[in-house]
Parts: sequence; structure tokens; C-alpha cells
Amino acid sequence: MMDGGIAGFGDRLRGGKITAEAATRAYLARIEALEPRLGVFEHVAAESALDTARALDGLLAAGTDLGPLMGVPVAIKDILAVDGMPATAGSDVDVADLIGAEGTFVKSLRRAGCVILGKVKTVEFAAGGTGINYVRGTPWNPWDAETQREPSGSSSGSAVAVAAGLSAFAIGSDTTGSVRGPAAHCGVFGLKTTKGLWPTDGVFPLSPTLDTIGPLTQTAADCAVVFSGLTDGPVAAPAAPGGLRLGKPTALFYDNLDADVERCTAAALEALAGAGVEIVPVEIPEAAEVVGAFAPFLPIELIAVLGRDRFEAGRDRMDPVVASRAAEGLDVTADDYIRLLWRQRELCRVAAERMAGFDGWVTPTRPTVPPPVVGRAEAEAKLPLPPNRWPNTPAGSLFGLCGTSSPIHALGAELPVGLQVMCPAGADSAALSIARMIEDIVGPPPRADMASFL
Amino acid sequence: MMDGGIAGFGDRLRGGKITAEAATRAYLARIEALEPRLGVFEHVAAESALDTARALDGLLAAGTDLGPLMGVPVAIKDILAVDGMPATAGSDVDVADLIGAEGTFVKSLRRAGCVILGKVKTVEFAAGGTGINYVRGTPWNPWDAETQREPSGSSSGSAVAVAAGLSAFAIGSDTTGSVRGPAAHCGVFGLKTTKGLWPTDGVFPLSPTLDTIGPLTQTAADCAVVFSGLTDGPVAAPAAPGGLRLGKPTALFYDNLDADVERCTAAALEALAGAGVEIVPVEIPEAAEVVGAFAPFLPIELIAVLGRDRFEAGRDRMDPVVASRAAEGLDVTADDYIRLLWRQRELCRVAAERMAGFDGWVTPTRPTVPPPVVGRAEAEAKLPLPPNRWPNTPAGSLFGLCGTSSPIHALGAELPVGLQVMCPAGADSAALSIARMIEDIVGPPPRADMASFL
Repeated sequence: MMDGGIAGFGDRLRGGKITAEAATRAYLARIEALEPRLGVFEHVAAESALDTARALDGLLAAGTDLGPLMGVPVAIKDILAVDGMPATAGSDVDVADLIGAEGTFVKSLRRAGCVILGKVKTVEFAAGGTGINYVRGTPWNPWDAETQREPSGSSSGSAVAVAAGLSAFAIGSDTTGSVRGPAAHCGVFGLKTTKGLWPTDGVFPLSPTLDTIGPLTQTAADCAVVFSGLTDGPVAAPAAPGGLRLGKPTALFYDNLDADVERCTAAALEALAGAGVEIVPVEIPEAAEVVGAFAPFLPIELIAVLGRDRFEAGRDRMDPVVASRAAEGLDVTADDYIRLLWRQRELCRVAAERMAGFDGWVTPTRPTVPPPVVGRAEAEAKLPLPPNRWPNTPAGSLFGLCGTSSPIHALGAELPVGLQVMCPAGADSAALSIARMIEDIVGPPPRADMASFL
Repeated sequence: MMDGGIAGFGDRLRGGKITAEAATRAYLARIEALEPRLGVFEHVAAESALDTARALDGLLAAGTDLGPLMGVPVAIKDILAVDGMPATAGSDVDVADLIGAEGTFVKSLRRAGCVILGKVKTVEFAAGGTGINYVRGTPWNPWDAETQREPSGSSSGSAVAVAAGLSAFAIGSDTTGSVRGPAAHCGVFGLKTTKGLWPTDGVFPLSPTLDTIGPLTQTAADCAVVFSGLTDGPVAAPAAPGGLRLGKPTALFYDNLDADVERCTAAALEALAGAGVEIVPVEIPEAAEVVGAFAPFLPIELIAVLGRDRFEAGRDRMDPVVASRAAEGLDVTADDYIRLLWRQRELCRVAAERMAGFDGWVTPTRPTVPPPVVGRAEAEAKLPLPPNRWPNTPAGSLFGLCGTSSPIHALGAELPVGLQVMCPAGADSAALSIARMIEDIVGPPPRADMASFL
């Protein structure tokens, strides 16, 4: 349905070659066919989606055009409230009161004319980077039909839905990498927006200090259309490589890469440099704090959000990995948290200074291709806290930056590899322009072969 | 020197009838005469003040007019760094590193042409409302030469300096009432500015969430001149009573008033109503939280600022009351603090809603006239935390409001009584207009008789 991307669909819709209803029906059929193997959806809203699509077709026929997202089917991460649909935040513990009523952002999707297909799976409370959910299920990463591999998280369902073609795009959230990580592991594009760009009312608050909403799309070009549709700005055009200056961090961000990630990243940087992008080393010594002091930051805020009583009462029904991580926030004293909070504000200031003169910083999104799912909660719970395993995305979050993850495994790997570009706070549209340039240079991302799932 | 207030001084200065040097010399002489009895100053910078005054006289004669504060002698609370002067924050524990170098605000005083007379006493770490400092001394409240009465705090020295005529105005800071309380108890005018109006770099951070800088002056008219000189805005004119709508809180703020405060407050409200101000009851149920949940808020942030190690190492040398209050922040867990922090943000939102349709809320500043100093740290340390004793000023701080305290004991008391008007965030200039109107209606505040101190 989405040949030519979301823009191409829009052209066909307005040219009378397709209807929103037909597109919605096709996505619903594909969901029905693939859902048993992939386990992506918490809730499929077939009836309301079709009703909405028909109404939108009528509206367009009557002369009201809601813009570039009109009639476009979307899947929503199940930490955002959507009227008429359940809201679990990936948990068997009832936290609907913490999510609240449908918020500003989902309402903006409706005003833009999106067709909401349903709610897709998430790591419990959006608090984890593997994508595994031991209580409500882990979506299957479409890039390997034989071995279950981590889709990454926490926006696991959002990334798998887009990778498997179950929705035209999807909404995720990114607190320390929950859009960028899944985009990298599922071979799709992800945008981590600047904190505050989109209000997070009606979203489960994992960390009110860092939570952001972000879209996952098949391409950067699609994301530019989505962003334009939701911000009423122009569609970000590809940046011109000449004159662009990207920093390549000298430490941490390029540590412990597997061969696939190292190869594809090197090839991408070479291709960018060949096209005229200036790539220069940049020192970001503060990044070391991400893998040290800040590891307990999310557990602390999660305990505050849940409340100690609800946590203790519900702990046995929680995902054991999430519960054990959250428990690390139980015994932190207020002064230790406050010092982290104030230091984080200072890090934003310092990072903005270090970013001066750069259009962005380029790094691998994750150090490895998606690893096989371990499948044993006990083993996983003993692993280091996520910031220590994958510092590349939390750094950008703690630094107050926005950023993108672009699929680059076409440059030399079988499994997905993501290239992250962190950009200054507020430069979301510029980040999309850079990502579109990367897409032009690297070529369109390959699609997962879903035939073996059918 | 200040007949006709700061504006009158400015007229005489520009008319050649007085010089900045002569004014500075007169203030220094008065300080020398009264300081032994009052104990206001931590540091008198006689030489640099006279050098500065002479230079300013030269500058004015050469045709450079720095504006309404040029040549005006000021005293600075000893929690603000001033180049070339000590910075104790009222403590025998060295916290100069936490205060830092002279900050933006003091530099703005210099640019406005102020003559800095010296540093005046404060409650240790600005953390207390009585004005008593058991380690570095308590300034004497000028309204009673026989009995030592609380000057209130923490800007105790700033209020006493203005009340005793030791400086044309003074700089204080207000976290939960530290400008307004001393203004009320010392019979002077105080402005608590909106959080963020003036940056607090170079100021000891008692609570980075709530700290504000504010001036203390003899009159609201003087404060309007000071505010104008520091913000480059026009001098706030007295508001017209007709059309003004002030809320009178129905609960808490009028509880436990002594007879003097009750009488003067009632007389003030009657006079305002008689002049045409509409005074209507307003319910602010959230104020109850101030005297409950939020009492530990400052101790928590103070421990985070000092650091647990410095606190433990220096505890024996601290004011015993401050140390025992601060210790209440030691055992608070991060989630409890976070919930307070988030609730405080919500309170700002709710208060702004409740303020809609009002120009301000009017209350007594403190429930009593200045009580005699108890003089026993052990007894004081057992009293409830300040928000519980004086909820009227902390409420405005937690609600994110600005506000003023106007001296009104001319309406029927021997000892000072303050009338607080809380105004919406950002309405600092409007708050001064309302205070000037009150001053016009109530009449100019009486001056303390300093003859018995000489």
C-alpha cells in the first residue's frame, strides 16, 4: 500500500487510486495473517479503524483535506492512552490511572487524519532495552524467522509493526533509547524528539524528566512527512552534504562493536565523507557519566511514579527483569537523586556547548546486531542496567538532544544495524534533513522478507 | 539622606545638592554608630564603598548617568558573592565553593551604579525564619530597644539595615519567605520576585527549585525605583483601586493571628475596600499541603546542596537549629522527594488557575508581631519546621507566585505588622503597583526610633 512511502500513498489517495478504507483493510488483513507468528499487538481496533477510514474517505470526498497523514494507518505503543482501547503499559498491574485519558499527542494524530489500527506491545512500563516482556509477550523480530532475536525496546511492538508492514508508521516513546534501539534492531527509521516538543500527557510516565514521544517509520522520508503532518511545518528536505559537519565521538560510543556494526558504520561514514560531509573527532568526556552515576536514574523515577506501595503490592506480577531493575530505585536517598537531577541539567548545558559548530554527532545506535533472546529472566536480571550496556542512546537523552537512527545494514550485514545521529535540542527538523541525506547516500533500507512467516 | 526616598536622592544627586560620596560617608557613619548595638554587618566595605562613590560622582560629572540607582548605597545579604568581600552564608563551615564567584545579579547592581556598603547577616544557609543565628550572631530588631525581638529571617540583616537606616535599600533572598518575613517583622517593604526573574548564580543555593532574589526597601515607592533600575522597565505607578480584585483566602492564611495582626489586617482590608478595591473570598485548598507534605522539602535540597559528607563533618560547628532542621532531609528517599517535586509543579499550575480573575491574594505576612527571641537553641530546634509555623509565605513560593509585604502597623500596633499580596508569576511589576496603591491608602510606614540605640 505504501509504495512511494506515505507521500506516495497520499498522492494515490488524492488521485482516487486508493481509499483509506482499502488501505486500512489491507493492513488489517496483514495483521491477521502475521500476528500469530509475530505477537505484536495488544489490541487490534479493526472496527473503529474501518469506521474511521470510511469517514475520512467521506471527508476527503466532501472537500476537507486534513493533510499528509490523512487516511494513514498507524499503530500506537501501549503506553499511550487511546480512547476506547485498553491501556496496559505492558503490565499485568493496573496502571491505567497513571496513564490517564487520551492525551494531546494522540488527539493530534486524530486531527491529522490518522487511522489508529490498535495498540502494540511494549516492555513493561517502557522500562527496558531488550524488547522482552515476560508477562505480556515479546514481539518477534522479523529479520530472523528461525531464531527469536531481541526486537530491542521498549517500543518493541512499534518497530516490529513497521518492519513487518503491519502499519504505515508507528508511535513509540524514547526515554533513554526506546525509539532508537528498536529502530536499529528492526531495521527501520526512528526519531527521538527533543524533550518537550510533544507533551506527554496521556502517556505512562517512566521518567517525566526524560520521556519523549517519537515516530518509527520505514524511511527517513516517511518520518519527514509524519513530522510535517504533526507539526504543521514543511517536509524536511534532504540536507546538502557539503557544509555539513558531523562529530565522531572519540570514546565510549565506538566501544565493543560487533563486526557487523563496525563494518556498516565505517562504510556509512566513508560514504558520507565521500559525499562531502565533514566528519571530525569530538571529545565528549561527560558521556562516561552515563555508564556510571546515571544508571539508577530511571529506576528512581519509576518507583516514584508507581508509588512504593503499588510496586510492592504488584511486584510478583511484574516482569521479573523490570521489577528487579525498578527495585534498584527503592533505597536511593533524596540527596543522591537531586544531585543526579541537577547534574543532568548541567550535562544539557555542557552538551549544548560541545555541540557548537557541529550539525550532529554520529555513532552506531547499538553496538551489536539484534542478539538472540536469552529467554531466562533470572539471567537477564543480573545483566548491568541498560545505560551500561547501550550507552549510545541514553547519552543523547541525558544531554537533552534529539536524534535519529537510520537503518544501514545494506552496507554489509544480514541483520539490522542502526546509525545514530544526535542533534541539538530543538533541531528535530534538521535531524530529519540529515537522516534523509544519509538515506539518499546509503540507499533505501532493505525490507524484511516476511514470506517465511506466512 | 533619603528624604523623598531613592527618587528624591536621585534628584538631589543630579541637582548637585548631594554627592554619592557624601551619602556613602553618612551611611558609613551611621553604621559605625549603630553597628555595636544592632550587629547587622558581616563585613563593612568602607574603603571600596567610598572609592566607588567617588568614581560614580566623577562619572556623573563627566556626563554618564547610570540611571535611578546611581550612587545609591546598598547592603547585600551574605549569601550572595561580592568580589573582594568574604562570603559565609551565615556559617562557620566554609561553603564559599557552593556560593561561587560574584554572580549576574550583583554585577547588575554594579552596572546600575549602586555603592555596595558591605555584607549583612543571614540565618545560616538562609535556612530559617526567625532571623536567629547562633553561630554568627542575630541582628537586633530596631523596633524594641529593650527586648531583643526576632528580626525574622533569613534576610535578617537586610531588613534590619533598611529599618535602621544603615543603607538606602538592601538585597535579600526569598525561598519560602526570607524577604517577606523580615520585611514584616522589621516594618519595611519587601518584594519576593518570581522564580527565574533574576538568576541565582553566585548565591548560596538553599533550594535551587525555589530560591529567588528580592530587594528590601523602606517603601513600596523605593522598591519600584529599585526594580526599575534593575530591569530597565518603567517605574511601577500606583494601581488604581477601582477595578482591582483581590482574593482573601478563606482558610489557613488567617488562622492563629495575634490581636495586633488581626486588627491591622482588618483595618487595611477595610481601607482598601473603602478606596474601591474589590475583595472577595477565595478558596485555596492546596494551601493545606504547605503545612504538611512540603515541610521536609528544604531540608532535602539543603542536604543535597551541602553534600552528606560536608554536613556530617561540619554539623558540630553549625547553628544547632539549622543543623537539626537540615538533618530531617537525611533519611528521605528519592521517590518521596520526587513526588514532592512533581506535586510542586502541579501546585504552580493549579495556583495559576485559581489566581485567574484576581490581581492578587491578600493575607497577613506573618501571624504575629515580632516575638521576643527565645534564646535557647534546644527549645527552638523542637519547634515545628518553618512552613508549619508561618504557612503564608511558603504557600506563595510553592505556588510559583511573586509577592510583596507592606508595613501596615500604622493602622494600630506598636510593633511591625506586614500585609502580604501574592500575585501571578511574572506579575512582579504589577505587584509593585498594588503595593504602591496600598502605601498611598495606608500612608507611609512609620520609622523606627533609633535614638535609644545611640
